[in-house]
Amino acid sequence: MIDKVDTSISPKRSLEILSQREVEQLKASGSSDHSLYALFRQCTLAILHSGSANDDAKALFETYQDFDIDLIQQDRGIRLNLRNAPANAFVDGEMIASSREMIFSALRDILYSETERNNIRVDLSNSSGITDYLFHLLRNARALRAGELPKLVVCWGGHSISEVEYDYSKDVGHELGLRKLDVCTGCGPGAMKGPMKGATIAHSKQRISEGRYLGITEPGIIAAEAPNPIVNELVILPDIEKRLEAFVRVGHGIIVFPGGAGTAEEILYLLGILLHPKNRDIPFPLIFTGPPSAEAYFTQLHEFIGKTLGIEAQQKYRIVIGDSEQAAREMARGIEKVREFRLQQNDAFYFNWSLHIDYDFQIPFEATHENMATLDLHANLPKHELAANLRRAFSGIVAGNVKPDGVKAIDQHGPFKISGDRAIMEPLDKLLHSFVDQKRMKLPGSEYIPCYEIVE
Amino acid sequence: MIDKVDTSISPKRSLEILSQREVEQLKASGSSDHSLYALFRQCTLAILHSGSANDDAKALFETYQDFDIDLIQQDRGIRLNLRNAPANAFVDGEMIASSREMIFSALRDILYSETERNNIRVDLSNSSGITDYLFHLLRNARALRAGELPKLVVCWGGHSISEVEYDYSKDVGHELGLRKLDVCTGCGPGAMKGPMKGATIAHSKQRISEGRYLGITEPGIIAAEAPNPIVNELVILPDIEKRLEAFVRVGHGIIVFPGGAGTAEEILYLLGILLHPKNRDIPFPLIFTGPPSAEAYFTQLHEFIGKTLGIEAQQKYRIVIGDSEQAAREMARGIEKVREFRLQQNDAFYFNWSLHIDYDFQIPFEATHENMATLDLHANLPKHELAANLRRAFSGIVAGNVKPDGVKAIDQHGPFKISGDRAIMEPLDKLLHSFVDQKRMKLPGSEYIPCYEIVE
Amino acid sequence: MIDKVDTSISPKRSLEILSQREVEQLKASGSSDHSLYALFRQCTLAILHSGSANDDAKALFETYQDFDIDLIQQDRGIRLNLRNAPANAFVDGEMIASSREMIFSALRDILYSETERNNIRVDLSNSSGITDYLFHLLRNARALRAGELPKLVVCWGGHSISEVEYDYSKDVGHELGLRKLDVCTGCGPGAMKGPMKGATIAHSKQRISEGRYLGITEPGIIAAEAPNPIVNELVILPDIEKRLEAFVRVGHGIIVFPGGAGTAEEILYLLGILLHPKNRDIPFPLIFTGPPSAEAYFTQLHEFIGKTLGIEAQQKYRIVIGDSEQAAREMARGIEKVREFRLQQNDAFYFNWSLHIDYDFQIPFEATHENMATLDLHANLPKHELAANLRRAFSGIVAGNVKPDGVKAIDQHGPFKISGDRAIMEPLDKLLHSFVDQKRMKLPGSEYIPCYEIVE
Amino acid sequence: MIDKVDTSISPKRSLEILSQREVEQLKASGSSDHSLYALFRQCTLAILHSGSANDDAKALFETYQDFDIDLIQQDRGIRLNLRNAPANAFVDGEMIASSREMIFSALRDILYSETERNNIRVDLSNSSGITDYLFHLLRNARALRAGELPKLVVCWGGHSISEVEYDYSKDVGHELGLRKLDVCTGCGPGAMKGPMKGATIAHSKQRISEGRYLGITEPGIIAAEAPNPIVNELVILPDIEKRLEAFVRVGHGIIVFPGGAGTAEEILYLLGILLHPKNRDIPFPLIFTGPPSAEAYFTQLHEFIGKTLGIEAQQKYRIVIGDSEQAAREMARGIEKVREFRLQQNDAFYFNWSLHIDYDFQIPFEATHENMATLDLHANLPKHELAANLRRAFSGIVAGNVKPDGVKAIDQHGPFKISGDRAIMEPLDKLLHSFVDQKRMKLPGSEYIPCYEIVE
Repeated sequence: MIDKVDTSISPKRSLEILSQREVEQLKASGSSDHSLYALFRQCTLAILHSGSANDDAKALFETYQDFDIDLIQQDRGIRLNLRNAPANAFVDGEMIASSREMIFSALRDILYSETERNNIRVDLSNSSGITDYLFHLLRNARALRAGELPKLVVCWGGHSISEVEYDYSKDVGHELGLRKLDVCTGCGPGAMKGPMKGATIAHSKQRISEGRYLGITEPGIIAAEAPNPIVNELVILPDIEKRLEAFVRVGHGIIVFPGGAGTAEEILYLLGILLHPKNRDIPFPLIFTGPPSAEAYFTQLHEFIGKTLGIEAQQKYRIVIGDSEQAAREMARGIEKVREFRLQQNDAFYFNWSLHIDYDFQIPFEATHENMATLDLHANLPKHELAANLRRAFSGIVAGNVKPDGVKAIDQHGPFKISGDRAIMEPLDKLLHSFVDQKRMKLPGSEYIPCYEIVE
Repeated sequence: MIDKVDTSISPKRSLEILSQREVEQLKASGSSDHSLYALFRQCTLAILHSGSANDDAKALFETYQDFDIDLIQQDRGIRLNLRNAPANAFVDGEMIASSREMIFSALRDILYSETERNNIRVDLSNSSGITDYLFHLLRNARALRAGELPKLVVCWGGHSISEVEYDYSKDVGHELGLRKLDVCTGCGPGAMKGPMKGATIAHSKQRISEGRYLGITEPGIIAAEAPNPIVNELVILPDIEKRLEAFVRVGHGIIVFPGGAGTAEEILYLLGILLHPKNRDIPFPLIFTGPPSAEAYFTQLHEFIGKTLGIEAQQKYRIVIGDSEQAAREMARGIEKVREFRLQQNDAFYFNWSLHIDYDFQIPFEATHENMATLDLHANLPKHELAANLRRAFSGIVAGNVKPDGVKAIDQHGPFKISGDRAIMEPLDKLLHSFVDQKRMKLPGSEYIPCYEIVE
Repeated sequence: MIDKVDTSISPKRSLEILSQREVEQLKASGSSDHSLYALFRQCTLAILHSGSANDDAKALFETYQDFDIDLIQQDRGIRLNLRNAPANAFVDGEMIASSREMIFSALRDILYSETERNNIRVDLSNSSGITDYLFHLLRNARALRAGELPKLVVCWGGHSISEVEYDYSKDVGHELGLRKLDVCTGCGPGAMKGPMKGATIAHSKQRISEGRYLGITEPGIIAAEAPNPIVNELVILPDIEKRLEAFVRVGHGIIVFPGGAGTAEEILYLLGILLHPKNRDIPFPLIFTGPPSAEAYFTQLHEFIGKTLGIEAQQKYRIVIGDSEQAAREMARGIEKVREFRLQQNDAFYFNWSLHIDYDFQIPFEATHENMATLDLHANLPKHELAANLRRAFSGIVAGNVKPDGVKAIDQHGPFKISGDRAIMEPLDKLLHSFVDQKRMKLPGSEYIPCYEIVE
Repeated sequence: MIDKVDTSISPKRSLEILSQREVEQLKASGSSDHSLYALFRQCTLAILHSGSANDDAKALFETYQDFDIDLIQQDRGIRLNLRNAPANAFVDGEMIASSREMIFSALRDILYSETERNNIRVDLSNSSGITDYLFHLLRNARALRAGELPKLVVCWGGHSISEVEYDYSKDVGHELGLRKLDVCTGCGPGAMKGPMKGATIAHSKQRISEGRYLGITEPGIIAAEAPNPIVNELVILPDIEKRLEAFVRVGHGIIVFPGGAGTAEEILYLLGILLHPKNRDIPFPLIFTGPPSAEAYFTQLHEFIGKTLGIEAQQKYRIVIGDSEQAAREMARGIEKVREFRLQQNDAFYFNWSLHIDYDFQIPFEATHENMATLDLHANLPKHELAANLRRAFSGIVAGNVKPDGVKAIDQHGPFKISGDRAIMEPLDKLLHSFVDQKRMKLPGSEYIPCYEIVE
């Protein structure tokens, strides 16, 4: 039986107050699938679903199709009336504080993204315009903090990992926290939750009450990877490309845990950027780590990177197996170098302005059958361009696996077809197979039906 | 000898970080008199001039014509390099914290006003559009605080008042502070400083460390009425009309001390609004108060209001002479009624949405000779319209007295000519004369040369 | 190989500053086993040993017999120089904040206990004198907080429990934390750590940054049950009797997890008090809870209580098996009743003044062979007196198991002999046997050699 | 008509919770004049009398002889029921927060002084024992703050000074506050209030919300010099000698404003200490300052010091006339030297342990006719001993002027007789005369009848 709850909430500690224009914008935006209201409803549903071990967004939306939100301007600010909400975000009838906060963060971000898009000064047709837009979104979400030393570690990895891998990610988070580092993730379960949980305990030991657990997500993925309740800052960006750029602009280093296609996408995105000639001298600590059981996984990934992007790419990261303390210690050292570099360059600590990101990496990739079929995957491309296209291939696979639009496209037209040089296709095929074998494509229990086909 | 200082500052506690677009906007805006940079420079100069007893903006600008600001993006945020700055905002070479803060507030407001104006959703051609715009400016300046009870008392009155009147305004501020009320003023010296100073001491006695001393100003007046350093929240709005609307939207009650033409402008603005049929049932505590020596002043004002706007207008306020405790006690009671009314109407505490303000009161009045000459000042107008026009007449006189543009116009074309019904003109003439006689038009010491002429 | 560290620490955030008299007291107190310095050294060693899974105090002291502390009065307060300290309380050479804090808490408590004992007004020869002394110790440790609602749940249970039991204790702590309740324990590992860890995560979800994890211990037990690093308030009381009284005076309810002899001691202590005729009407929520695997344990305990203390005693608690949410919900409800009762009685929330505790329960029981042999364990005693004596029996067994003095006595003279009515001895023997069988007497891995003998 | 109020208060933010022993101690102590209850009642009356411009303690006690306090232990802590309390500490029926706080500070200090005195380890028969006792009292009052840089400026001067002098003391406080220094005074009106008020405004400008306004007083003087409400930390020490020692142990520098006999007492006390051979190398910034109108006063004082204690004593201070900025700047520089010295000596910042204070300066001087008559005032004494005796002479005069016991003694036996070397007596006589002429002995308005006679 599905437990549903009616309730009414208002922001407790936050500045989330709305103008009448904004309230009307939300209300008036109707019920079309991409209206502001629809976006907000979808994010709220995902937030309330937090803690659930289910990544089936479609099922979630169907189960709660009668879920609905009313906005009311009133005495002390805004009030939301929720009807037929999932019951698991409540304790004895009262909504858990983190859920309430995240809902108002979603409201804030959805409205502001829209407002900025309406600003005639905002120009999304070039790289620096997009970066500037992203900066404004993050600043409005108060995610950029002047006066703080570099200490934000981005953790990437699968939302569906084994218990051993999950525990290991907690250990790493614990070691990071003991070193007074903060954690930023994509804010779902699995490798996105473990490090935050570990850091919470470690921050408590270090008497740090202001630890940051920053979750960055986007409306397309939030339902499949519901924000875990440790997240104490939630930012919802318009699309996956903004989200990826946010990770590399606000994070001072990145740790990659085992994952599936989404994690591969993230790695390729980052390698594509770091391989760009303009970025060669910018320090960016990048560590792949997992328990001994994940050694095979990283070996395969390492090989794939070697065969497709070459040795230079392999030198951008370090692999640490089964030693959480070592992983954290290296990250702390790497971040120290970042600090020195930024000081020397007079660059801000809170936003990595100097990193060059090609326009190609910034524009949304729509995972249609046509786009997937025409991806240019040839060995003679410059490495950072090849990385960009490989990134898109994995992005499409993630969409086909879990994003509502992607899943629908697969339902209608069958698997995506991907083609290219044999020197690229073979390692790709092998890597994807290993993901399937290791059950990294879907939550355990469900059988995985590939949403792609390698054609030559 | 003029003491000038070169220095470099960055925000200490604030979120004032800028995007590259914003930095460029400021830098690129050139040196035209109304460029963003010019506005910012002017406000900064005024802020650094704080505490000075001089209201001669022209002299200030001339003395410091070599004053200049450089913006630098750097390691921990933004940095401003100031050259040839007035020395009195410094203690042993270090800028006083309040000045530093205010400079960054000015930066924030000037940039955001511009940004919002570039938003295609913002519509300044109608009343609710302007109110919404104002709401966004105030929210961005964090001047709207959800979750706080009504307790913000706006204090109006002259920047150039006698010592007895100044001490009395301190006493009233002290009594307000003892009753845990906060103070908002136009943020200059005189009656804008006294209540804040008194409240600071009283808040200290009541162990309130979060007392608000909100100063609301605009670029045209800031140089003549430099923000006093008690102000712990500074908001710079684009023009006098936004500033007046801000007072009545965020304040929960208003106390008027003796003043000159500017104070008369404020009173007429407020009476015009309160007399509007749509606002008749909205509680709005309004108290005119001063020491015994100010009794004549209030008697004349009361008579002028009676003769021009009638008895109904006279009932909108209460006059309290020589009893600061009584003034504060009545204000506290009035605010209690505001609280009850808002709760009952489900209206926000932090913004008086339900107050109706005619478009006429919102659009900037440009104090040109033509506009002043054609003001419609006839007895048969609806009272709230007559109040609007009388307000404009005083606004023009303020401009002619102290605002750079107005002073220049008077220098070139002689005094403004104002005309209308004898039933209006006679009391107006009498009131203005009394202001001159009581030396309420200019700082003491300088002789006042009227910038207007009543013609019939 | 044993890792040892030399370091120097000073208090970061605390008020722990010492007078010269105190410094001299500590220094001068020589190296006798019960000198202040010896006590402090022993506590510090235990604190630095935190996180270790070893309860062998003797081994700890032997391993670190060259550990030593120097006190230095200096510029910004006191400084401690540690030599040959255990390395595991350090991260990359820096002491973990919680360890540093706890060391200074130990210093504070050891000195103050001594100071108070030297106060001629302090009278430890009667019940209310002892309670008053305890009150002063707790107040000095800032453990009594006026103005806070009742929300402190004491959790009792073994330091050596199975993983399933440990995880269950975490779940219960999590559910308590979600209900905004705080946790107090004896501050060691196992059931003393789990609830704190769970509550830490839950408080983070509820955005409670001021959650209390209060650990109360005493010098005799601290080495065997080293404070876990989640503890953010450590109080060291002079002996086990003060510690037990502290639990029932500051806690608003008690949850008992599976444990061994120490847990039985705690339960008997509490039942002895609650059975006292003067306490019959005082609400005191008491819940025994564990995972399904602990059902047998609680059944045996329940039977033992029934056979020795009767049905009335059985009605003082509720048993909840395998339902952490239910356990927390009942505790929250029970505490609500405590709140109502205290309000009605005008009794303080932070100290349960009205609970009557017999002098018998307050005076230290020295676990000598003679004292153990002469315990009066007869069925015809009033129930609360029988409970007191049974409590002593278990206290002796704990001492013989893990406390330095007790272990030494057993080494020299063989097991304690306990005798009494068959109606008492039989169930006691059975219960102790079950503890041994369930491996609840010692940490797993080591074989348990009983330190007692039941003689008839 | 005298306005009296009945009310009931409890501590809002503080840790002031009492044990039952303490409550009984207070209640049981009966109504003798020196009982704890009598002391507490007297201090409370003085605190509630705060802000009044009257220094007539006798009149105060007579007017409010029916004032009385009941202590009640209850739900959330302690509660005090006051009957027939002075009305001026209330705003619209509610007690001002600072008064409520100070009453609980008085309770804390009176109880703790007593408790410590009952500690068998406390030995008041020698210098270091007294200093240690003082240290404990100050620590218990949380007046010693580890981890803060030296920044506490003690301000001495008359409670009855002219308006010009009062305004000047405010200016100095303002300049100190702008330099981020805190203020400590004897906590009455006049020169004890002005600097605190000025610093409050300056701290507000510097955005310092944690400014300290530490008032140190004693039961004998508190009624004549009621704590001003700016004081945000009140400490009540047992007698004038502890209070003087507290000033020199916690202050990092001292500013002396014009005053009367009390101020002379303070100056002689300090010079006596600084002249001690053991203290010669300890930096201690000491500045005498006042407006131009106070120049004569300081000239006389300077001459008196020269004639009695010699040139060395004159070199211990600097005189700054009419330049508040200069006075503050020199103090800031002096404190910087104190900081360096303490660091170098490894001495605490919060307590000047290294200053040597002779036992002679520490033992209470009882102002009886016999003690005054036998004071040894001869030129051949070592300077620091002569200073000690001169200090006592002034102490006696203060007692005869305003302290209840002293006033009573004068009423009964006529003026004190003081005698000694002509080389000492002449300048003394001259100085005292000038105090009378300048009306520095009593509040203006009342005529001063000398309580002493110089005999040769």
